[in-house]
Amino acid sequence: MEQRVSLVTLGVRDLGRARVFYEALGWKSGAAPDDDVVFFQAGGMIVALWGREQLAEDTGVEDSGGWGGITLAYNTRSPEEVDAVIAEAGAAGGMILRPGAETFWGGYSGAFADPEGHAWEVAHNPHWTIADDGSVTL
Amino acid sequence: MEQRVSLVTLGVRDLGRARVFYEALGWKSGAAPDDDVVFFQAGGMIVALWGREQLAEDTGVEDSGGWGGITLAYNTRSPEEVDAVIAEAGAAGGMILRPGAETFWGGYSGAFADPEGHAWEVAHNPHWTIADDGSVTL
Repeated sequence: MEQRVSLVTLGVRDLGRARVFYEALGWKSGAAPDDDVVFFQAGGMIVALWGREQLAEDTGVEDSGGWGGITLAYNTRSPEEVDAVIAEAGAAGGMILRPGAETFWGGYSGAFADPEGHAWEVAHNPHWTIADDGSVTL
Repeated sequence: MEQRVSLVTLGVRDLGRARVFYEALGWKSGAAPDDDVVFFQAGGMIVALWGREQLAEDTGVEDSGGWGGITLAYNTRSPEEVDAVIAEAGAAGGMILRPGAETFWGGYSGAFADPEGHAWEVAHNPHWTIADDGSVTL
């Protein structure tokens, strides 16, 4: 197994609402308005929105209904950009879990949840490199 | 917000066990043996293992304790490779959630959970392109 992730699927209860949220953040999908799955090209991988019940059934797991131990993160090129993205997520209908602040590991971060409760940390990590294409290197 | 994911953090109850599992799949980390977070460079992004309690607290969410609506996927270059990765995950101590089989969308996939219950679909999707560097394009 190569050391990579191809796809992150976010199970959603209201696909239209979730799609509108990510589109409000500037994300673009080629999905038709009534498609039952929405794929976003996200750098070298893909983020999908799909019914949470179908995803649980397809995955072969029981759904605990809440947060399940996975947090996504979006890294920025500056601390100021963290505040901008958190504000953008709040304006788009996300819930601000934690406003931007300095962290114990020497960076600056905040966190939001999308309307389905999927959590994103937004972080500036001065120890990591972000390339022009958005890829991140340790 | 650019259309990308920088980091996927998997909250774990037993960091050593989780680390051994991913290393058994061939993944390599520069973390020291007693580091409390393990980062894997995964293509243009990063996968991290960190204490699930700390991750919940840091994220600002309640932990439901089980699966929370996110499934990761690893796409292969052939159907046969799906079976090989599922077998590898089972041998490494993962739970096989679904053996490889043809799917309703014209591909071939199976699924496993890591020892912490984080679910991975392993899929061959003939409609998507995997580049030499492992990046996936819709």
